[in-house]
Amino acid sequence: MTTTSLSIRSGDGTYSVDEFGSLGEALRSITAGDRSVYLVDEDFAAIHAQELVPALPGGRTIKVIASESAKSLEALAPLVCRLLELGIRRDGTIVVVGGGTLQDIGCFIASVLFRGVAWELLPTTLLAQADSCIGSKSSINVGTYKNQVGTFYPPRRVLLVPRVLATLPWDEVRSGLGEVIKLQLLAGEGGFRELMTDLGRLQLEPALLAKWIRRSLEVKKQFIETDEYDQGLRNLLNYGHTFGHAYESATHYAVPHGIAVILGMLTATRLSASLGLVAWSHYEELRALLGPWYRPYGATLGVASREEIVRAIRMDKKNSSNAVNAILTLGFGKMEKRAVDLDAEVVPVVRDFIDEETAIQ
Amino acid sequence: MTTTSLSIRSGDGTYSVDEFGSLGEALRSITAGDRSVYLVDEDFAAIHAQELVPALPGGRTIKVIASESAKSLEALAPLVCRLLELGIRRDGTIVVVGGGTLQDIGCFIASVLFRGVAWELLPTTLLAQADSCIGSKSSINVGTYKNQVGTFYPPRRVLLVPRVLATLPWDEVRSGLGEVIKLQLLAGEGGFRELMTDLGRLQLEPALLAKWIRRSLEVKKQFIETDEYDQGLRNLLNYGHTFGHAYESATHYAVPHGIAVILGMLTATRLSASLGLVAWSHYEELRALLGPWYRPYGATLGVASREEIVRAIRMDKKNSSNAVNAILTLGFGKMEKRAVDLDAEVVPVVRDFIDEETAIQ
Repeated sequence: MTTTSLSIRSGDGTYSVDEFGSLGEALRSITAGDRSVYLVDEDFAAIHAQELVPALPGGRTIKVIASESAKSLEALAPLVCRLLELGIRRDGTIVVVGGGTLQDIGCFIASVLFRGVAWELLPTTLLAQADSCIGSKSSINVGTYKNQVGTFYPPRRVLLVPRVLATLPWDEVRSGLGEVIKLQLLAGEGGFRELMTDLGRLQLEPALLAKWIRRSLEVKKQFIETDEYDQGLRNLLNYGHTFGHAYESATHYAVPHGIAVILGMLTATRLSASLGLVAWSHYEELRALLGPWYRPYGATLGVASREEIVRAIRMDKKNSSNAVNAILTLGFGKMEKRAVDLDAEVVPVVRDFIDEETAIQ
Repeated sequence: MTTTSLSIRSGDGTYSVDEFGSLGEALRSITAGDRSVYLVDEDFAAIHAQELVPALPGGRTIKVIASESAKSLEALAPLVCRLLELGIRRDGTIVVVGGGTLQDIGCFIASVLFRGVAWELLPTTLLAQADSCIGSKSSINVGTYKNQVGTFYPPRRVLLVPRVLATLPWDEVRSGLGEVIKLQLLAGEGGFRELMTDLGRLQLEPALLAKWIRRSLEVKKQFIETDEYDQGLRNLLNYGHTFGHAYESATHYAVPHGIAVILGMLTATRLSASLGLVAWSHYEELRALLGPWYRPYGATLGVASREEIVRAIRMDKKNSSNAVNAILTLGFGKMEKRAVDLDAEVVPVVRDFIDEETAIQ
């Protein structure tokens, strides 16, 4: 039984996010399952074999190792051929069961196979359930370039099974909280403070996690429905990402994505304070409240060379040559995109932020 | 100076087809040329070096051998990397100078690079100028599957230089006439008869060729503006293609595409007559009028095995398992999509058609 349903308006029609109590229930709800081909995350399939094996058609299931290299233009052709060999047709459906990386792969393939074939998504990580599963975007790597290729192509439906998160290591769930926190910071003070109160009990109360998944999607929905194609408002969802991406790549991904987003948001807040856009006390309060949710990774930044971090910020795809386009904050729920000077304004702030984080731990 | 301009409405905005007197004039008209990267057909670049070299920026021009294998998902990654190395940016433009194959490559890449970057098209073959340059579609091969991957992504502008066709071998121009003839058969009796009168003088009068390029685009415009995403009316542009594609693949491409389309249209007309949809005299008249434009290739069909032709018709991507969806004709300008029985209705007609064509020549 579907317990909750959220509907998302998109340029390609409206789609729904339906919540289910179990994997089997969700998979049985797939319409025209006999014309579906399934792309399933290999690790997830192993952990949930007992529930998945009876629910998936063996002859039309492809297990995928969802790595960064699988998410590349170079790696797609064999997978597309496999889908065609398994008899996928124009009126068929690609069902994706996996996290954000497999979602990127499945969404991209669905958008170009037969110039667009229907797809449904069962997200299996917190990041995918609370954030990436809506918004239509796919991102694909090519050569050494990350996420430079992609499409906008919404699924026909998202199947949410919060219960599957119970089998994830707590560390993985915790790292997924970065985007959950970001969305509430974008939404405003009330939601953010409520989340801070609930966070400590998330691990013990699965219903609480399900609540914050829904609340996250409700916030993101406002941004993507207003600006699906990332022309303006939606840019704000990149809050924390310009710096976060740089921290991820400069530490060679020793810092998980969600944690990097928290560190990136703190950096953006510190930059905002240094530019006089927000009070220093706002930065200090956020740093104190978020500390338990990113430490000890703040110190990991000390490992990376400062030059590499600055180079990564400069290279970020959202930036033109000299100025850096950063999402800055004027307070809870008041984010703005601004061009800032990399050398004069950004570099000192990043250096001080990392110095402090490294000293603390 | 632009002499004529045709405007095409599309789901992604309106774009124009502008006609120019020379290559240099066309290329100089490219807006923000300094942010453009050029994909140029290698053969075309060699033939037109004198005009192209001064007009193209050496550091931002990529010459491409526009083969069927270059038009594959497997071959795209190095080309996308090359574009990124040359500094293409979100606000840049990909300028494609080539025929239908390079158009497919360029259109597909433009539609997925940065989730969509602007592109402009200077078509260099009759087929590309009179037909494929409008309509937004790209088709890409994967593995042994032809044209199963693609996107709908209109160019920002089409730059038409009919004069470049003067350097093409007449045989190549002639084979491009297949789609020109098809479009006039779809338009109605008046245009078709006028075209038949003009055809014999095309080789001698370049202005006449330019006229029929324009007339072709005007017909195609009606179909694609009404049904850009190929949901109904646009299917009719496949008139002659189900059989034509089978003739091409079963003869291992010994029959050029445009000629195969003529042979395919005649087969569809013969099938229509055998089903009582149109008078046999209509078929005989078309066969007599079109003879000079496809012979001696009718006899080439005798080389292919009948089994292979039937298998290719069955495999055609537009067909579901047993029935064949063919575009049939009820007369000039009266085409309809109908499901026909492959074994009972199609096979005898194809066999008789090939027997007669083989006997004649």
